[in-house]
Amino acid sequence: MKKIKYLKCIHCGSEYEATEVNYTCPKCGIDGILFVELDYEKINFNKEILKYRPNNILRYHELFPIKDVDNSPPLNVGMTPLYKSKRLNDFLGLKNLYIKDDGRNPTASFKDRASFIVVKKAMELGFNSITTASTGNAASSLAGISASVGIKTYIFVPETAPRAKIAQLLSFGANVFAVQGSYDDCFDLCIQASDEFGWYNRNTAYNPYTIEGKKSVSFEIWEQMNFEVPDKIFVSVGDGVIYSGVYKGFYDLYNLKLIDKMPQVIGVQAEGSSPIVKAYIENKEKVEPIENPKTVADSICVGHPRNGNMALKFARKYNGSFVSVKDGEILNAIPLLGKLTGVFGEPAGVTPFAGLIKMKNENKIDENEKIVVIISGNGLKDIESAIKSTGEPNYIKLDINEIRKYI
Amino acid sequence: MKKIKYLKCIHCGSEYEATEVNYTCPKCGIDGILFVELDYEKINFNKEILKYRPNNILRYHELFPIKDVDNSPPLNVGMTPLYKSKRLNDFLGLKNLYIKDDGRNPTASFKDRASFIVVKKAMELGFNSITTASTGNAASSLAGISASVGIKTYIFVPETAPRAKIAQLLSFGANVFAVQGSYDDCFDLCIQASDEFGWYNRNTAYNPYTIEGKKSVSFEIWEQMNFEVPDKIFVSVGDGVIYSGVYKGFYDLYNLKLIDKMPQVIGVQAEGSSPIVKAYIENKEKVEPIENPKTVADSICVGHPRNGNMALKFARKYNGSFVSVKDGEILNAIPLLGKLTGVFGEPAGVTPFAGLIKMKNENKIDENEKIVVIISGNGLKDIESAIKSTGEPNYIKLDINEIRKYI
Repeated sequence: MKKIKYLKCIHCGSEYEATEVNYTCPKCGIDGILFVELDYEKINFNKEILKYRPNNILRYHELFPIKDVDNSPPLNVGMTPLYKSKRLNDFLGLKNLYIKDDGRNPTASFKDRASFIVVKKAMELGFNSITTASTGNAASSLAGISASVGIKTYIFVPETAPRAKIAQLLSFGANVFAVQGSYDDCFDLCIQASDEFGWYNRNTAYNPYTIEGKKSVSFEIWEQMNFEVPDKIFVSVGDGVIYSGVYKGFYDLYNLKLIDKMPQVIGVQAEGSSPIVKAYIENKEKVEPIENPKTVADSICVGHPRNGNMALKFARKYNGSFVSVKDGEILNAIPLLGKLTGVFGEPAGVTPFAGLIKMKNENKIDENEKIVVIISGNGLKDIESAIKSTGEPNYIKLDINEIRKYI
Repeated sequence: MKKIKYLKCIHCGSEYEATEVNYTCPKCGIDGILFVELDYEKINFNKEILKYRPNNILRYHELFPIKDVDNSPPLNVGMTPLYKSKRLNDFLGLKNLYIKDDGRNPTASFKDRASFIVVKKAMELGFNSITTASTGNAASSLAGISASVGIKTYIFVPETAPRAKIAQLLSFGANVFAVQGSYDDCFDLCIQASDEFGWYNRNTAYNPYTIEGKKSVSFEIWEQMNFEVPDKIFVSVGDGVIYSGVYKGFYDLYNLKLIDKMPQVIGVQAEGSSPIVKAYIENKEKVEPIENPKTVADSICVGHPRNGNMALKFARKYNGSFVSVKDGEILNAIPLLGKLTGVFGEPAGVTPFAGLIKMKNENKIDENEKIVVIISGNGLKDIESAIKSTGEPNYIKLDINEIRKYI
């Protein structure tokens, strides 16, 4: 695994060989998230290669800390569409707004990017069981991709996880534990279980390769925008791993001298679950966990963000920022996006879109900026929230006269 | 529109110019479904062109009865993955079984193929409102693709349509009528309404271009199998339009001299809703409607199949066939497919897979045959049916000792 120069603890700065440690810094424990520093001089990658590559995440395989492409999970992850919707741009008074529809992944969420790389890693390391804690999407994603290669999964979700995500998990044959507790509780229980039962652990950020999978979205954005770097990228933030993953992708490209600037990444949290926004506004270096986070956007309902500190570091270094939006703004964003683009997002999926609208209304967006909004999960993942925002259909008798009332 | 040689009534054989008629044969009415005969000598298409084409349905644009590719809906329809799952092949004792995951379309069903071409057609004809009757998927698909270009939609679904499909419809801004009646009732009401209000009608088969959109799946299968024709293709059958669409795609390729054989298409219906199977077994030329069709697979719960007669004709001509499966077999197929491949299908989506298993068990499948099973809709479209087939998760307290009980 010569591609990895070292794993560096974001807390104490210690450096490790990739073969030395699987998860966090042994000195710092759970706070010692490891950053994967690649040896860019050993990576042979250029734009021309892409002409001959499959239309999925493996088109950038040199940039991932995996041995090779053999025995990769067969599911087609990534290369989700990037839409420049004229209707949406006109509506918002913008000229260069793009929507990245990541609900088009195999299990209908962004999380497939991380699960793909982690499952590949587990296979290289010889594990045949993987576990994760999750609000739902990381879990269904891990279960689906593991099923495609015959790896067992043990999943910890809060018992309140949306039924759609539970249905996916069970259909993929996962062993599902619906826990009387929060996502944050599940996270700790899952680490305890993987320690005890010897399962490979995919917990987000705790497993450093989750960030390495998530960074793939940046390679795609870069390629789909004709190898340009957008000015701003909006992402939803729970643990802060997508946020850091987006930056890590551009960090790789920058270090490979394929780009000469970094984008601003805007992390959007739900107001009732916004510890990273708080730390950012108060100019803190560390994120303080909050008790009882609450939001309609279940995927980002996280009181103790496991990658908040790395996200803050990236933001400070590259002029990124964080904003929060109300649950009402999130719900309104679902049909607004749907009506204008035909893209259906779950609450956490449209949260960054709600953040963009808020910043636009505050005159913080220039109409010419190149902006990408990442929709991280399909609206089918949580249909009752959608209907909450749209109202019910017109129930009618089988009679044409009934229709006239409504048109 | 010189690409269309004529529209031919499958009932009386009358031929029409494409500009003469929008829907069915004026002489035969609702039974006079029109078959779109292309003028193959005027079509300039070859395999080499595909190297330079986008990764979606428009890569075959010469083969569709549309004027050009300008102003097409921006959503990325088609080019869904074709998986040859080793795990699945091993489990079934087959060597060349492929799964076509059409739940990866923009609105998570196969129906996007038809909606894309019909919306493009509506735009060319100058309509700004479209209507359809649907069990749910055709509707959400039409609503999503219409939203992407700003066309109004009026949708008729049975009031029992799954909530997920209703949620999509409303989020895409459709005017939704949830009708006290069956899908078959909605179909007739929708035609009455489009006649009265001047909306363009997308009702399946009634609008001949639905078949022209659905045929796109055959072009993809052919290309993804390195320009070979599979021996058998399994599809679910409600109205019989996907069935006919698959044959129409290969018919086009055959007439363009790009292939030299036709596949066998196996149509699979649910036992409680299987009028086409009945007509096929009884060697009838016409499908007799049945009253009160009933199946867990809502998307194919159709008593009066609007394209049954064309489907029968194709089957007779090219050695296709039809089988039915029980609801229990459909439900069992959901987690079986999920566990082995990581692909999650709705009940109608996995129905053809259930049909394949049945025929395999009856020794009607040779292990070497090249077989494609089309999964027409994502499991997220109907999650309660999935959970019915899998059982509930393990509900546990926040305590590691609880886990030990289950492993």
